[in-house]
Order: sequence, then structure tokens, then C-alpha cells
Amino acid sequence: GGFVPFLRNGLVSFLLPVFRGSPLGVSPLSSPLRLPQLLYEEWARYGVFYKYQPIDLIRKYFGEKIGLYFAWLGVYTQMLIPASVVGIIVFLYGCATVDENIPSMEMCDQRHNITMCPLCDKTCSYWKMSSACATARASHLFDNPATVFFSVFMALWAATFMEHWKRKQMRLNYLWDLTGFEEEEVSGFGPLHAPPSLHVPCPCPCPPRRTRRPSAKSTPSPLQIAVTFAIVLGVIIYRISTAAALAMNSSPSVRSNIRVTVTATAVVINLVVIILLDEVYGCIARWLTKIEVPKTEKSFEERLIFKAFLLKFVNSYTPIFYVAFFKGRFVGRPGDYVYIFRSFRMEECAPGGCLMELCIQLSIIMLGKQLIQNNLFEIGIPKMKKLIRHLKLKRQSPPEYEEHVKRKQRYEVDYNLEPFAGLTPEYMEMIIQFGFVTLFVASFPLAPLFALLNNIIEIRLDAKKFITELRRPVAVRAKDIGIWYNILRGVGKLAVIINAFVISFTSDFIPRLVYLYMYSQNGTMHGFVNHTLSSFNVSDFQNGTAPNDPLDLGYEVQICRYKDYREPPWSEHKYDISKDFWAVLAARLAFVIVFQNLVMFMSDFVDWVIPDIPKDISQQIHKEKVLMVELFMREEQGKLQLLDTWMEKERKKDEPSNNHSPRAGPDSLSGGPAPDHAYQGGVL
Amino acid sequence: GGFVPFLRNGLVSFLLPVFRGSPLGVSPLSSPLRLPQLLYEEWARYGVFYKYQPIDLIRKYFGEKIGLYFAWLGVYTQMLIPASVVGIIVFLYGCATVDENIPSMEMCDQRHNITMCPLCDKTCSYWKMSSACATARASHLFDNPATVFFSVFMALWAATFMEHWKRKQMRLNYLWDLTGFEEEEVSGFGPLHAPPSLHVPCPCPCPPRRTRRPSAKSTPSPLQIAVTFAIVLGVIIYRISTAAALAMNSSPSVRSNIRVTVTATAVVINLVVIILLDEVYGCIARWLTKIEVPKTEKSFEERLIFKAFLLKFVNSYTPIFYVAFFKGRFVGRPGDYVYIFRSFRMEECAPGGCLMELCIQLSIIMLGKQLIQNNLFEIGIPKMKKLIRHLKLKRQSPPEYEEHVKRKQRYEVDYNLEPFAGLTPEYMEMIIQFGFVTLFVASFPLAPLFALLNNIIEIRLDAKKFITELRRPVAVRAKDIGIWYNILRGVGKLAVIINAFVISFTSDFIPRLVYLYMYSQNGTMHGFVNHTLSSFNVSDFQNGTAPNDPLDLGYEVQICRYKDYREPPWSEHKYDISKDFWAVLAARLAFVIVFQNLVMFMSDFVDWVIPDIPKDISQQIHKEKVLMVELFMREEQGKLQLLDTWMEKERKKDEPSNNHSPRAGPDSLSGGPAPDHAYQGGVL
Repeated sequence: GGFVPFLRNGLVSFLLPVFRGSPLGVSPLSSPLRLPQLLYEEWARYGVFYKYQPIDLIRKYFGEKIGLYFAWLGVYTQMLIPASVVGIIVFLYGCATVDENIPSMEMCDQRHNITMCPLCDKTCSYWKMSSACATARASHLFDNPATVFFSVFMALWAATFMEHWKRKQMRLNYLWDLTGFEEEEVSGFGPLHAPPSLHVPCPCPCPPRRTRRPSAKSTPSPLQIAVTFAIVLGVIIYRISTAAALAMNSSPSVRSNIRVTVTATAVVINLVVIILLDEVYGCIARWLTKIEVPKTEKSFEERLIFKAFLLKFVNSYTPIFYVAFFKGRFVGRPGDYVYIFRSFRMEECAPGGCLMELCIQLSIIMLGKQLIQNNLFEIGIPKMKKLIRHLKLKRQSPPEYEEHVKRKQRYEVDYNLEPFAGLTPEYMEMIIQFGFVTLFVASFPLAPLFALLNNIIEIRLDAKKFITELRRPVAVRAKDIGIWYNILRGVGKLAVIINAFVISFTSDFIPRLVYLYMYSQNGTMHGFVNHTLSSFNVSDFQNGTAPNDPLDLGYEVQICRYKDYREPPWSEHKYDISKDFWAVLAARLAFVIVFQNLVMFMSDFVDWVIPDIPKDISQQIHKEKVLMVELFMREEQGKLQLLDTWMEKERKKDEPSNNHSPRAGPDSLSGGPAPDHAYQGGVL
Repeated sequence: GGFVPFLRNGLVSFLLPVFRGSPLGVSPLSSPLRLPQLLYEEWARYGVFYKYQPIDLIRKYFGEKIGLYFAWLGVYTQMLIPASVVGIIVFLYGCATVDENIPSMEMCDQRHNITMCPLCDKTCSYWKMSSACATARASHLFDNPATVFFSVFMALWAATFMEHWKRKQMRLNYLWDLTGFEEEEVSGFGPLHAPPSLHVPCPCPCPPRRTRRPSAKSTPSPLQIAVTFAIVLGVIIYRISTAAALAMNSSPSVRSNIRVTVTATAVVINLVVIILLDEVYGCIARWLTKIEVPKTEKSFEERLIFKAFLLKFVNSYTPIFYVAFFKGRFVGRPGDYVYIFRSFRMEECAPGGCLMELCIQLSIIMLGKQLIQNNLFEIGIPKMKKLIRHLKLKRQSPPEYEEHVKRKQRYEVDYNLEPFAGLTPEYMEMIIQFGFVTLFVASFPLAPLFALLNNIIEIRLDAKKFITELRRPVAVRAKDIGIWYNILRGVGKLAVIINAFVISFTSDFIPRLVYLYMYSQNGTMHGFVNHTLSSFNVSDFQNGTAPNDPLDLGYEVQICRYKDYREPPWSEHKYDISKDFWAVLAARLAFVIVFQNLVMFMSDFVDWVIPDIPKDISQQIHKEKVLMVELFMREEQGKLQLLDTWMEKERKKDEPSNNHSPRAGPDSLSGGPAPDHAYQGGVL
């Protein structure tokens, strides 16, 4: 089969294996019998989790496309190591400084004795600030200046990762002889045997149509965008209302005390919904893509991936977005709360900020999704299916079954395995995880660590699955990871802006800075908690919303406090939004602008400094090209010389009978009617 | 010279001209005698300004690098046409709505009778708001909602332009047979004759050193960055202080009345300084690059361009940045002005906003720079030099001179022309102009029109210069416009954020919106001017700063107004920054975030939707590759068959004397020691 790669890759990759003599030039189908055993030993056992993956073997057995997936997974996992280390350091910094954190100390201080306004109507009563002490202390673990540093670090980490992968991919392209390889589309040219004329402006064999053909880049049609976004929007609205309803239905008295427990249980329900909807969305994406009727298989796959990603992304992150940016923002104020459906008050965040809840949400969804989807779906379900098949067969033919199994050929056994369903679910899982690692890293510095631990298992799990649970997939060549790279880039870009918003809006970082530089009397954070709280005169409660048990704390309350920047009751415009609110808002927005532009600039700089092609590879490619051209020229010259010698001799010999040479020439060239001036001159 | 392009471009471009048979395959040196005449007729006259440039002829005569420059200039000029049309429409919209603009109507209304605080200490007196009527009306031409639309349009225009150029470049690469061409660096490999071994990991012939070799991408060293930025910073500081000093030295009484005149004259001085410094910076950039000692000529050129661009960019735009973002921002308030050098008050902007001044500044610098640098430097100076040389020669040898000229050969006449100094100044001029067109387009919608008019002249001027004034440059091959593309991209990205800031901070767009939605009583702009002005009690003037002639307006002034958001004199915290200030600031910052991210997203979308390689070109390239491989295979087969035939015959003939064939084989193949198993099998 020397011809096929020749036609596919052009001359370069045809001649290269001759030069290199390396074992990598072997086709992916070589030695298929020993390879799986070797791969199992070296790769698909948990015992070798510390080893690099034998990428070349994987490529030989499974083809380039799957080889690239595992190479990518390996690079990603490797890159997670430094991120995890820095994440752990940031987390430990938070732990170490929790006792020096003045705002949480002030909140825990019994002497301050701040009376807070009730968290719900009637049934809730006033409560003491110090009862939220634990939450405040825990918040500090994830809401400290080191987090800002970590967000910047992770944005640059993402840029470095992309560059690193580009280089690795280039290196693999070189080693796997893919440099000249072009993916061919099915709806391309006519058959090669009919020589197409080269000067026709439109080489498309079909007649030109009015309607624009969808390009290979999968430009989405307006209809498709509209449908996708309609669904996405519907999901968001559904989610927010469900989340709100869920939170409101829980008993108020329980909620005010064990807020964390309630949050956690709500999140678990969320998690289950996410995992179930994930499956539904897969089908919707497939249906949506089918009604579009893409022209080529590649285009179909890309569109499907893009849509599935969009839906699953929204599915996974909506509850997190809700907690990060919406929860507790539109609650109104005591005496003028915002109600939905006329009777339910909007949820509030704990005095430590919503960041703690975001963190719980993130960790449960991330861990739960990985554990359930990995263990249950990736191991459990295939195993169960196998068992069911096994039992079915046994029941159908109980007497001869045992014998039948023993007699079975290898291909029969293999046929009973699950068919290979494509790499999309594997990539999807990892990209959603990449999103957890980068998008909200400002609120959860341990995310890279969890991702790393998951991936170490994931690699071996996937390996095991590919080797032992699935039918061997058809080897497909691929130069790159395709649309996934663009999706990764998109997630990386989105991460910058989302982290900027998390730091400035969800965490208390900016209010603290503003307090420190604009209001603090002595340049310390003392008095910060007091500054963030506004006062409310309990006589201003709306009818029927005051607490039923106003003496719950043991004393009569006249002024209660709530977290907002509003004018005090004794001011002229009482309960109006205060100047501080606007000042803090301006500071938050300014931080977003500065952070985003700075990080984008640094990412671009990283992108620019690291060359896309490793220096040694680019030199090697160049050198091989030069050498090959040289060799080719020499060989051609040799052939010409040889021909000349023969012909000279022939001519001398045939000079008397001159009718022999002209006949032999055309006869021998009948294989190709192409122009061959170069040596035809020599013949005639 | 068949070998050189072969070794350079690989097999593809060697064999292609054979296929195509197109006139484009001709080498750039063909028919050198008729070409200049043709080029002059078709290209280098003002009379043909409406014609497309004959790019293929330019490339034939001047080589690919200069051909690409003119192609780029052509694409840029062509793209300026829609931008100019939209710019004119936006300007006309401003003109049409100037009489419906309530804020400027209110300012011009004599009945409102607002007394403003003096613009300088002592010598200036109070003045009436209505005296700034003309400025306010003029401001509206450039500060209306259409400008916001135009900024978005121009950002997308820039993205489209980049994509359009990429496609054009790809097309030219194809038509000019550059698809396989790689630029070679001088410090590359050892001589080709010594066959380098292919499996050495480091193919670099020099011993590995500790210090990292600068890569071809011209990664700047920290020292270099530091030096460049130190100079840049120095220039900024120098500029701001000069501008401030200049503005303060002009007579105050004149300034308060004919502000525009003073601004204009100050800008002219600025313009002269810019043009002079431009020359100085060219030398500095060259010197800085020389002390870096880059390894290759390409690297030298890239570094030089990058540094020269940075310096010239800062030089051209610093005064504009000063007016747009700093002038009038840090003036303090009446009674507490900010002084520099203890006696000079900071400059203020007119009540119509700084946008008008920005516009004047922009138009004078842009037009002046183009007119002076184009006409004086590009036509005048070469003509003068020629004249001087002519006169010198005449004086040296007056008697025989006339005769000598007549006797001179063509090459002697040509030798007297100016040598070609590279394309850098041409590109630089255009990129700085691109900056004017995109960076501050929010404040000057006519910039594309001026650029278009300039470029129509510029193309023919450059053409004339290249044909008649300069020695014919050595033809250089190039695949793209190199670092200029990256600089263009950078300017495009910067434009988004700068336009966001110009709209939100320099123009009154956001304060107007805030007034309309937060403060307006009846949903109209009535009362907006009053809202933006704060009050000042004249009794609060610092000692010695009150006007000498308080009765200048004919009545006693108790309360004067100034443009700022501050508390009134009767407030508790008098003259403190008010809540409105923070609210407007937050709105401005929010606008920047929304605008920047929206426009960036749209630009990315444009980038993604338009494929980089035109569909027909990519299909054509693919087709040619397939065809070429097919042809090559057929030809090889033909040769093999021919050889086989000869050898078969030979063997039959030589069968009795068997010592002939083995000698002939190795002898004829001595030209190449490379492996040629394919037909060696046939020989033996």
C-alpha cells in the first residue's frame, strides 16, 4: 500500500520513511497481535499511573486521532501538576492567614454584638452577626488576595497550556509523518481519473447554486443560532426559577441556621438534574445537527460538537453562574424586599459573601459530576450491559452456551464488545472539566488538584476501556484535535472575563480595598464589617413582614443591620442607595477593565513569545526538505544519465536500421500520457 | 536557474509552471526593458488614479516584496471607501441633528443666563455659558449617538480588513507560486554538500551555549524593553509638561475667548515637533537595534521595525492621548485648583467637552502630517537632492557637462538616482495613518475619508517615486508583509479599548444617558446642562485668586457654575464629590466593559466566519497537488518501463558476453549514492 499514502500526503511523506528508517514509519496496522498486550501492560493498568503514556504504541494500535486524544490528555494532566501545586499553596496561605483576617475576626467578636435584620418574613427573627462566624472564617480560605494572584496565574497557565499543546501537536505531526497530510472532505472533487482542467475558476463539479454552500468551517445559519439560543435561554430561565423555588420551599427556620447544609443538599439535586439533562442535550444536539443536513462528515461532527458543547456548557455552569452573579443581588432591602410570585422573597447570601456558597456549589458539582460520570457511566454501565448480554445469551441457550464460549473465535468474542462511539464524550468531559479549572478558579483554588486526581484515574480508565471494553476502533488519521482546540481557546478567553467578575463582584476584595484606601481611619481593616452594613429602623417594616418573635435575642431591637450600601434611617433620603455604593461599584468595574486587559495582554505576550513550532522540529523539517530535494535531483540525474548512456549505445548500434528506437519510445511510455519533455528530448 | 527555485520551494512550485502554462510563471526579471514604460503608463500617473494597480506587472519588475506592499496598499485603500461613506453619513447625521440637540440648544439659549466661574486666576472674569454656544454646536457634530455606532462599525471594519488582506495575500501567494516558499535565514545550516545526519537531536552546527539564542520571532530582551519604555515614558512626560506649559503661556484673556484658535496654533507647534522627532526616533531605533546585535538580517529588520513603530506611535499619538484622556481631568475645583510649579493652573476643557479639541487636534495632525510628510519629504526632498547633484555636476565640469549627459549610458543615468531605502518608511506611514483611522474614530468620523483621499494620491506618488526617482530595487521574494501584519492586528485590538474609553470618558454620551434614565423629569434632555454643572459660592475663593474685575458681566456674581459633579455650597460636605459623580463613573466603566467585550466578540466572530484561504484557491491548490503527484507517478512509471525495456533488450543481446551490464549500472548511477531500490532491482 505504498501508493495510498503517496497520493494522500504528497511526495515528502512518501520518501521520508526511507530516510529515517525509524520504527515510527510503520503503519498503524503492524503487529496487531502483540500490541494490545503490550499496551495493557504499559498503559491500561492503574499500577502504571505514574508513567508517561506510550503514545507511539497507542497511535500504532488505534490510529492518529485517538493517539492525539491521549497525547492531549497527557499534556493537560501534566500541566495540571504545577497548577495544583500553586492552588494548594494559595489554599494553605488562606488557612494560615485566617486568624489574622480582621473582617472575619470582627464578625466573630462577641463584643461587637451586631444585630442583623431577619432573613425571611415573619418566621425568622433578628440574629447576631457572630453566629455567622464559621462561614466568615471559611470564606477567607477562598477570598483573600492570593486568589487574585491565582486567577492571573491560571489565565497565563491556560495560555501556556494552549501553546504547549500546539508545540506538542507539531512534534507529533512530525514524528508521525503528518506534516504534509491534509484531511480530505468527502464532497470534494470528481474522480481523480478524469483529469480536471486547471484553469476553470470554479472547480466544483456540481452546477453553481444560488444558496451559499456551508463552508468547512461550519458557519452556523441564523436559524440554527436562533434555535440553539432559544433553548439555552429557556434552560437559564427554567434553572433560575427552579433554583429560587427550591431554595424558598425549604423551611425558613432551618435555612437561617444551617445554611450550608441546605445549600449542599440543593446542589446535590442540581447535580442530579445536570447529569440527567446532559444525556438529553446530547440527543437534542444530534437532532439539531441532523435537521441542518451538513454536507460532509467532518462538518457534521464539528457542528454536532459545537452545539453539544454549547448546551452542556450552559447545563453545567448555569447554577454556578446563578450563585456567582445573581444570588443575593436583587433582594431589595428590609421594608422593601423583592418578591417573586408575590410571596417568595429572593434568596440572600450569607454575611461572609456568596463566595463560600459558590465554592460549595463548585466542589460538589465538579467532584460529583466526575465521580458519577466516571464511575457509574464509564465503568458501571458498560459492565452492566456486558452482564446483561452475557445473561441473555446464557438464558437463550443454556445447554450449549458454555461450550459455545470456549469454541468462539477471537473476532466473535470481540464482536460482543461495545462498539466505539467516537471521542466526543471523552473530549467533552475533559473540556467541561477544563472549564471548572479555569472559569471559576478565583473562587475555588483547589479545582486544579481535583482535576489532576481525576485525570490520573481517567487516563487509565479510558485506556482500560479502549483496550478491554470496546471493539477496536477503525484507525483514523488526524493532524490536530480539530474544533476542540477552538473551544479550549474560547473557554480560556471567557475565563479571563469571568474571573475578573468573580473577583470584583462575588468576592469582597474590592470593597475591602475601597475601605482601606478611602474610608479607613488608621489604614487597617478595623471597622470594615460595620462599613458594609446599613442600618434599618424596625418601625419601617412593611405590614405583616416584621418578625413574629421580636424578642428572640432576649432584648428589644430598634435598629437592625443588613448588608448593603444604603442611606441610614436618619438621613434625608432614607434607604436610598448611598454614595459608597456607587464608589464601590465604580471600583469593581474599574478592576474588571484593568484585570481583563492586563491578563489578555499577558496571555497574548505568552502566545507571542513561545514559538508555535519547536525550533528543533522546524529545523529538522527544513533540513529534510532540502535533503530530499537534493536526493531526488541526484537520483533523477542518475536516471537521465543512465538513459542517455543506453540510448547513445542503442543509436550507435541501430544506426543502419533506424526504425527501432522511435517505436520503443512511445510504447514504453504508454502508461502515462503526461508531458515528459525532460527526457523526451533525450529519446528523440 | 532551474535549480535555485527547485531547492527553495520544493517540488511543487518547480513543477507547477509546467502545468499551468500561465504568463504568471515568468521570472521577475523577464522583459525588463518594456516593463517600466508600461508600468509608468498604467500605474505611475495621476491620470490613472481610478484604476486598479497592475500588481502582476509590479511584481514582475520589482519582485514579490514590493508587489505585496502595493497590493496591501491597494486593499487598504479599497477598504477605506465603505468606511469613508459611512463616516460621511455619520457626519451628515450630526450636521442634520445639530438643531434638534437639546443640550447645545440650552447652552445657546440666552434666557438660561448661566454664569460660569473664571477659567484662570485674577485676570479672567466670570463668563456667560451662552458664549460657548458655537463650540457646543460644533461638538454635536462629533458627539452624537451615531458616533457610537460608527466606532463599532470601524472595529468590525478593521477585523474585516485583516481577513480580507489575509485572503488576498493567500491568493497572491498562489498566483505568484509562493505557496511552497519558505524564507531562509542566513544563520541557518551548514553547507548543503556535507550531508548532515538526520537523527542528531540538535541540528545546530555550533556548539550548544548556555545563553538562549534569540529566536526568529525577535523576542525582546528585558534590557531592550526597559530602554524602549524608559524612552517612551520620558517622551510622555516631556510632552505633557510642554503641552501644559504651552497652553498656560498664552494670554488668558485671549484664551477664554478664542479657545479654538489657540488650540489650533498649539497643535501646529505640536505637529512640527512630531515631524522633527519622527526623524530622530528613526535613528534611535536603529541605534537601539544595532547594540542588540541580532543574528539574522530578517531578525534585525523585525526588531528595528518594532522599535521604530513603538517610538513613532508614541510620538504621533501622545498629544492626542493627552487631550482625550488627561486634559481637563485633574484641574481641581474653584477655590481649590490644582497648580503645577505652584503658579500655573491645569488646562480646562470647553463646556462642550474635550471632544471638540480632540477633533481639531486629530484633523490638524493627521492632515498636516500627511501633507507635509508626503509632499515635502517624499517629493520635495528627492527633487531638491537631484537638483543639487545636477548643479554640482554642472559647476564641476561646465564645458563638457552637456555633452557628457548626452553620451551617458542608461546605467550611468540610473546610478545618479537615489538608492532604494527599503519599504519600512512606506509601511510605517500607512500604519500610523491606520492608527488615526481606527484608534480615535469615535471622535473624528471623517478620518477614513481623509485617509482615502491621501491614499489615492499616495499610491501614484509611491509608484512615480519607485519608477522614476529611485534606483531599481533588488527583487526580494516574500510570502507575506511580515511583522506589519502583527502590528496591524495590535493596532486593531488597541482601537477597540481606546474607542470604548473615548466614547465613555471623552464624549458626553454616558452622562447624557445617565441623565435621561436616572434624573430626567420628563424623559427628555431638558435640564441636562444644568445637571452637569456644580455651583460655587464666590466667597469661597482662595486669597488672591478671585477675579480682579468681578463686575465684568455687568452684575454682581454670588454663585458661579463649573463643570463637575460636586456637592453645592449649601450642602453639609460642600464641594465634595457627589453621588452623581460616582454613578456616572460607574456607568462609564460599565459601558467600557460592555463595549469592549461585545466588539471583541464580534471581531472574533468575523475572524471565524471568513475563511483565511479563499475556497477556490484552497481547492485549486489541493487539485494541483493531487494532479502533480499523479503526473509524477505516471512519469516515473514511464521511465521505469523505458528502462526495463532497454535492459530487457540489452540482456537478451548481451546474454553470451555477461560482463557488460553490471559495469554500466554503477557507472551511470555514480551521480547519486542515494538509495534507489526501486529500479536497481530491475538492473541486477
